[in-house]
Amino acid sequence: MSSERLIYLPLGGAGEIGMNAYVYGYGAPGKERLILVDIGVTFPDMDGTPGVDLILPDIGWLRENLDRLEAVFITHAHEDHVGGVPHYAELLGKPIYARVFTANIAKRKLEDVDLPTDNVRVVSAWPQKVEAGPFKVSFLPIAHSIPESAGLVIDSPAGRVIHTGDFKLDETPIVGEPFDAALWAEVSKDGVQALICDSTNVFSPYPGRSEASIGAGIKMLVGEAEGMVVATTFASNVARLKTLATSARSAGRSVVLLGRAMRRMVEAAVETGVLTDFPPVISPEQALEVPRANLMLLVTGSQGEHRAASAQLSRGKYLGLELKEGDTFLFSSKTIPGNERSVIRIMNALSEKGVDVVDDRMGDYHVSGHANRPDLERMHALVRPKMVIPMHGEHRHLREHAQLAEAAGLAAAIATNGTMLDLSGNVPVVVDHVDTGRTYLDGSVLIGAMDGIVRDRIRMALNGHVVVTLIVDEENELLGDPWCEAMGLPETGSSRAALVEVLEEDLSQFLNRASEKTLRDDGAIEEAMRRIVRQTAQTEIGKKPEVTVVISRLG
Amino acid sequence: MSSERLIYLPLGGAGEIGMNAYVYGYGAPGKERLILVDIGVTFPDMDGTPGVDLILPDIGWLRENLDRLEAVFITHAHEDHVGGVPHYAELLGKPIYARVFTANIAKRKLEDVDLPTDNVRVVSAWPQKVEAGPFKVSFLPIAHSIPESAGLVIDSPAGRVIHTGDFKLDETPIVGEPFDAALWAEVSKDGVQALICDSTNVFSPYPGRSEASIGAGIKMLVGEAEGMVVATTFASNVARLKTLATSARSAGRSVVLLGRAMRRMVEAAVETGVLTDFPPVISPEQALEVPRANLMLLVTGSQGEHRAASAQLSRGKYLGLELKEGDTFLFSSKTIPGNERSVIRIMNALSEKGVDVVDDRMGDYHVSGHANRPDLERMHALVRPKMVIPMHGEHRHLREHAQLAEAAGLAAAIATNGTMLDLSGNVPVVVDHVDTGRTYLDGSVLIGAMDGIVRDRIRMALNGHVVVTLIVDEENELLGDPWCEAMGLPETGSSRAALVEVLEEDLSQFLNRASEKTLRDDGAIEEAMRRIVRQTAQTEIGKKPEVTVVISRLG
Repeated sequence: MSSERLIYLPLGGAGEIGMNAYVYGYGAPGKERLILVDIGVTFPDMDGTPGVDLILPDIGWLRENLDRLEAVFITHAHEDHVGGVPHYAELLGKPIYARVFTANIAKRKLEDVDLPTDNVRVVSAWPQKVEAGPFKVSFLPIAHSIPESAGLVIDSPAGRVIHTGDFKLDETPIVGEPFDAALWAEVSKDGVQALICDSTNVFSPYPGRSEASIGAGIKMLVGEAEGMVVATTFASNVARLKTLATSARSAGRSVVLLGRAMRRMVEAAVETGVLTDFPPVISPEQALEVPRANLMLLVTGSQGEHRAASAQLSRGKYLGLELKEGDTFLFSSKTIPGNERSVIRIMNALSEKGVDVVDDRMGDYHVSGHANRPDLERMHALVRPKMVIPMHGEHRHLREHAQLAEAAGLAAAIATNGTMLDLSGNVPVVVDHVDTGRTYLDGSVLIGAMDGIVRDRIRMALNGHVVVTLIVDEENELLGDPWCEAMGLPETGSSRAALVEVLEEDLSQFLNRASEKTLRDDGAIEEAMRRIVRQTAQTEIGKKPEVTVVISRLG
Repeated sequence: MSSERLIYLPLGGAGEIGMNAYVYGYGAPGKERLILVDIGVTFPDMDGTPGVDLILPDIGWLRENLDRLEAVFITHAHEDHVGGVPHYAELLGKPIYARVFTANIAKRKLEDVDLPTDNVRVVSAWPQKVEAGPFKVSFLPIAHSIPESAGLVIDSPAGRVIHTGDFKLDETPIVGEPFDAALWAEVSKDGVQALICDSTNVFSPYPGRSEASIGAGIKMLVGEAEGMVVATTFASNVARLKTLATSARSAGRSVVLLGRAMRRMVEAAVETGVLTDFPPVISPEQALEVPRANLMLLVTGSQGEHRAASAQLSRGKYLGLELKEGDTFLFSSKTIPGNERSVIRIMNALSEKGVDVVDDRMGDYHVSGHANRPDLERMHALVRPKMVIPMHGEHRHLREHAQLAEAAGLAAAIATNGTMLDLSGNVPVVVDHVDTGRTYLDGSVLIGAMDGIVRDRIRMALNGHVVVTLIVDEENELLGDPWCEAMGLPETGSSRAALVEVLEEDLSQFLNRASEKTLRDDGAIEEAMRRIVRQTAQTEIGKKPEVTVVISRLG
């Protein structure tokens, strides 16, 4: 038995949907040479991460082992795979390999924050191979909801691993390479040690539908619409944009791209040659001169993002354009769990304007970019690996996917973030657990999810905040009375007097009775005052606020 | 033409799903005698209402016109129809009419907060009529996802109005009266002035399914399960509880009710005679002595509520009971938009325990309690009113429902909260708009949605909070330096020094340069210090915090 081993270690994306980051390593235990596949982000929400701008995987383990890291590979240009690049590229300081479109997007992200882009290296698809320490890595084209998605063929001395990336088995994807079963079979024919496989749609029971299958429905909808037509989808779904724009053109409508991400994606796709024959677009200013029946807007904000074009249009005029009774608004998208309320808010605002809202439940206007259950089975059968390691999914997806593989007679393991697997043998073996977690981009600072900063914000949001100030002189005598300021709390409670006055009264009573010993001890005063504020507030308003006590000692 | 009129004024529930409250009036304009139909609540979320306990309709208009209010009628015992009773019953001080089960629940709510229950009056179903000023009101049984739901037949000198309440056309509802088309036709045969009609499911294209249709599927699932079975649904869905419990019994399983709401609803249903033949239940303590293959738990928390039994069980032991590999957890429910993340969190926690999670997407384990589009058409055709006024729905539902009615040749109007309609003529006419909104129960205090209290909490959650304290003596000289405390903010920013020290330094510089005139003016100091803190923080951490400045003046 070799003393070297092939390891797999997800740092993000395994046990969640989003912020993908997977480490592979080969070598003697603890000395494996490493590569990182994808470095994505996920998005904050008010529930758990108020005020946070972006969520990144905690790469602490990787930083501690930075001298062992050879390179980074990005499978495709979705935010949950490439979004971490501008935040971590400099830190990691390693070459970042990607295909041309993905590399273009990664470079734009680095340029946005004035970082050098020369670490980003463009790689052609299979059979080109990149050497990275003990690994040879090749990008194997596969269809997804963004151009040029790729699986990775990762060859190591312990055999071949295939990392699918996000994928679907689409043979008519409109933009980008169709799924090529023969190519995947060819790559797999000499034996695959492990298939690391996308799990997000494992609960979808029917075979995935092709991007091409929705063209006719969209064309009919756009053709029959009378007023202006607006359609929203993910900006990165360039194939969808092409379908929508083509439908517009054949209905005699000029196309306007609204939203920075939308223009940027089309620009990158044209620039890199992955998008051809996209109809000409006009600017919002030019659109003002065109009759509304001859316009189609392609807009950002399919997930209800407050500042994106969809939300702006639902609220009123945006860049001079305004929706009216008789216009049609198409959500050519699926709402990601958690975004329902924001999307529904837009739908209702549009309804108030008399706009007809159409979404994918009313017709074939959207298809998923991920492999459904039967597609996963087909992939397992095609690659026939020794073992399947489900990745990219919540725990329930990973578990279901592992059961699916086992039902087909393949070894499988559920490995969530931080679980290190040895893939060298006939079955996956858990060999370590490393600390992982989440890092928040908060304004311009990276903070740890467990630092308590966001916890304090949530507490203030739930409980309000009372600030107590107190001045004590050289002789430990109070100067004046304690003073309270309340933020986020009702002004009056059960006693009908101002809450802050009731608090100040109770605090004064305590201080008047306090011993000199207590008054010498800031900690004791703080503790007592916090307790009094919380108790009194509970009686007055039925709520225990957060309390900050500021004691100023003169002299 | 009469100088008197029949009016309709929704104060809640029209333009939203939840917190139903509908006013009807008859009399001379501005002097109409009034009745209130339903007084419900809706539930807060972290996005818009952090820390709030309940959301109620703002009944300011009704309070101003309290002398005109005759009575309150409650159609059924769902929280969004009856939940406001304990908060507003005393305030309104009017008789509250309901059928026996609904009245039982309303009384329990009043007892919970030590309020008298004698205002609550039990009424039999049609043909019994309650006189309330110019109105005669009768409860017309109809099926819904709770026992004894009722439409209201509201007779006035301007004709008959039918207010459907929430309903479905279920002829085999398991518990409660089946939908009786002949009765509804009979009541409608002499002409109905207006049908005020539930709109929530207008976008569901297929006829609604009966509660009875899911019995077989549930029975099979429970029968085939090997370990313990847990099922969650709304506690008030007594018919579902009966179906689940009956399946348990026929699979040789003892039934345990977990969660206060669950026990309470079954108790109320048995007490009032609406529920019969419910299998005997055992206590959680007794359950510990029963093999897990012979147990079925019926638990609260189908919407992922953090403290309900479902969530507790997903986290660990609850009342001694613990889920294990091989157990089955059934969500016999639909996730309400906005609750997806909480429900998914539970599903993943269960997956980590090896529990098989089943929900309504995997089989026929749930049916809606509301009328779908074809059911609404059937109701329109059965009642044949002069006009249809869609109620209970977001704007998009009301609009779609109005279009549906108009397509059948009926007059219709979209009236959202605060819109007063005159229903006396052949078509509905908007005659007024009154101020409405939301009232929050926050701890033990009712606060207005627009008071700024919750807005301040949201701002602290998004931006953090900096408190600046400053002491100024009798001669307007600073005593010591300004002091900063930061809550919910990173400790260090771009300069690598402690954030509060950088802030204090910049504030000190400002104060040292400040004129005596400025130092005499608290407003000017506050404003300047707030600006400095926000600017410096923006530079340091890329975030502008909320700022509270406390200036203590000695002497």
